[in-house]
Amino acid sequence: MRRIALIGFGGVGQAFAAVLAERGEDLRREMGLDARIVAVSDPFKGAVYQEGGLDLRALSACVREKGSVDAYPEGPGVVRGLDSIATIQETAADTIVEVSPTLPGGEPSIGYCRAAFASGKHVITSNKGPAALGYAELSAAAKAVGAYFGIEGTVMSGTPSLWLGKAALAGNRISEIRGILNGTTNYMLTRMEEGLEYDDALGEAQQLGYAEAEPSSDVDGHDAQFKIVILAQHVLGVPLRLEQVQRTGIRDLTRKDVEAAVRAGSHWKLLARVEVDGSEVRASVGPVRVPSADALASVRGALNAITYQCDLMGPVTLVGAGAGRQETAFALLADLIRIEQRAATGRSLA
Amino acid sequence: MRRIALIGFGGVGQAFAAVLAERGEDLRREMGLDARIVAVSDPFKGAVYQEGGLDLRALSACVREKGSVDAYPEGPGVVRGLDSIATIQETAADTIVEVSPTLPGGEPSIGYCRAAFASGKHVITSNKGPAALGYAELSAAAKAVGAYFGIEGTVMSGTPSLWLGKAALAGNRISEIRGILNGTTNYMLTRMEEGLEYDDALGEAQQLGYAEAEPSSDVDGHDAQFKIVILAQHVLGVPLRLEQVQRTGIRDLTRKDVEAAVRAGSHWKLLARVEVDGSEVRASVGPVRVPSADALASVRGALNAITYQCDLMGPVTLVGAGAGRQETAFALLADLIRIEQRAATGRSLA
Repeated sequence: MRRIALIGFGGVGQAFAAVLAERGEDLRREMGLDARIVAVSDPFKGAVYQEGGLDLRALSACVREKGSVDAYPEGPGVVRGLDSIATIQETAADTIVEVSPTLPGGEPSIGYCRAAFASGKHVITSNKGPAALGYAELSAAAKAVGAYFGIEGTVMSGTPSLWLGKAALAGNRISEIRGILNGTTNYMLTRMEEGLEYDDALGEAQQLGYAEAEPSSDVDGHDAQFKIVILAQHVLGVPLRLEQVQRTGIRDLTRKDVEAAVRAGSHWKLLARVEVDGSEVRASVGPVRVPSADALASVRGALNAITYQCDLMGPVTLVGAGAGRQETAFALLADLIRIEQRAATGRSLA
Repeated sequence: MRRIALIGFGGVGQAFAAVLAERGEDLRREMGLDARIVAVSDPFKGAVYQEGGLDLRALSACVREKGSVDAYPEGPGVVRGLDSIATIQETAADTIVEVSPTLPGGEPSIGYCRAAFASGKHVITSNKGPAALGYAELSAAAKAVGAYFGIEGTVMSGTPSLWLGKAALAGNRISEIRGILNGTTNYMLTRMEEGLEYDDALGEAQQLGYAEAEPSSDVDGHDAQFKIVILAQHVLGVPLRLEQVQRTGIRDLTRKDVEAAVRAGSHWKLLARVEVDGSEVRASVGPVRVPSADALASVRGALNAITYQCDLMGPVTLVGAGAGRQETAFALLADLIRIEQRAATGRSLA
């Protein structure tokens, strides 16, 4: 049995619990994965722990109806009010699913991951901070205790972009990764091709919940910058710091620019790129006019896409959702499945 | 150490030997994969076996210069002239890479796979016959002896289409698979969009080596039909026979049809599809007008692409090479890597 503690019980955490509730029986039957959520701890929604596994339907009903897990029914072994660190260190959970609200510097997520590895527990996170800023330290800490550091959800949500590059294409030499890794800006650029001005496209993205009220993370390329740093470290195995990524956003692009490109047979895209050339690593995020023949040119709306340039295979491109609660919940599940496979084996699969 | 016998030493077999020769040292260092080709057997190029591993550079030089492995240098334990079945049954190889010239009914490949499993050996094949026609029998035979039946190269060559659906997206329910699984016809349709008549597009595809002199396998959809049968069985786990796939080719499409679709914002594509709806399975191969917004619409030239329609993730699309000697050699290597990982573990990874 795999015992999970959820650190953070916002939209993604709740979606993950819902997926496990809905297909737990199938996962047991089809893959031998018996996954129980034994604890949740969230600064806003409270904390509850039950060693044998929480009743996921009761848990979700509490949060839906009361906005808190405090109303979770009494039962054998129910413990309330453990903070996140205590939940990580003191419960019987063997796997920490870290989906807490986190700050741009990566805390408190990085600290949670560190505490989990120090306790010999696996970590799965969809927060970019630990994967981008803490990668070297945390992957070494995981390795030292034989734990798994699952970060599939940090790039393209559940679209298996990291696994493709690191596991499925292993055996190739990858010279370049390029991708549309931010759905908000791709949505905006698509709408600008359809005739919207920049401000209207941004307003629409905000209304749809794609962009924040303060949209800098998306439109200035910060989000994509984090993701290319993750890809460089995790897939290519090269150290790369945020400040080494040349970054330009899309604020200076106008509807006229975008339309002119289309008339000339190309599409403005916010591309994140990293190239390896011998010992040299070059990385950038910025708007690029992508010719129509490139598989990335036709990726429209909020979709994401990534191209691995491989020596044996040439370009291999994966296109799929880049965000979404359910999609991110699937990323967490995918890492959980890999932990289970690894546990049966004692060997890293990725 | 993994000991490989190559059954068939044509273009794909030679490309696989070249890849192992070129990056054997890297594979050993980076993944602990110590792979040696100990035997080759080919009806036209002869057969040679050396238990400790053949010298791949000498082997490739023989074939390149003499068209045969008969000139492979004498050395300790060199045995010549074993036929394919003897090579499978009597050598110390633990893994049979089956890339022999095979007939439409799947023989002799299916027989070779059967013999390998009967000897408790792993099989990797890029021949569609065993995977499409022999799937149920051969996967059961593999399971019975704890062997691996590697068929990644049968669909989209080394682009990891099967692994994506079966392993990376596991946890989703997949309701539909649709794909452009034949590069020759996609190349022809692309050229027809660029103004060529059907016959000229076919002639060009033949000149480029994409299409055979007798092009029926491609243009009548037989090749794609085999591949959708493989996908249904391997990824969806449902039985599907060739004759259950409704099949139409592209012979009746004209340049005018293709151009008219483009003017209306869509693209004619030869799509292979399989849908599962409860206990019902529907499969087809045929030309479809794909709207531009679909990720498959923009797949041009000889590229292939596949879309998995998932319940949690929505559509996930993979685009990459669909053929080629080096690309198929990579597929064989990818399966070899998975066997090695599994061997360290005793458990199926896919």
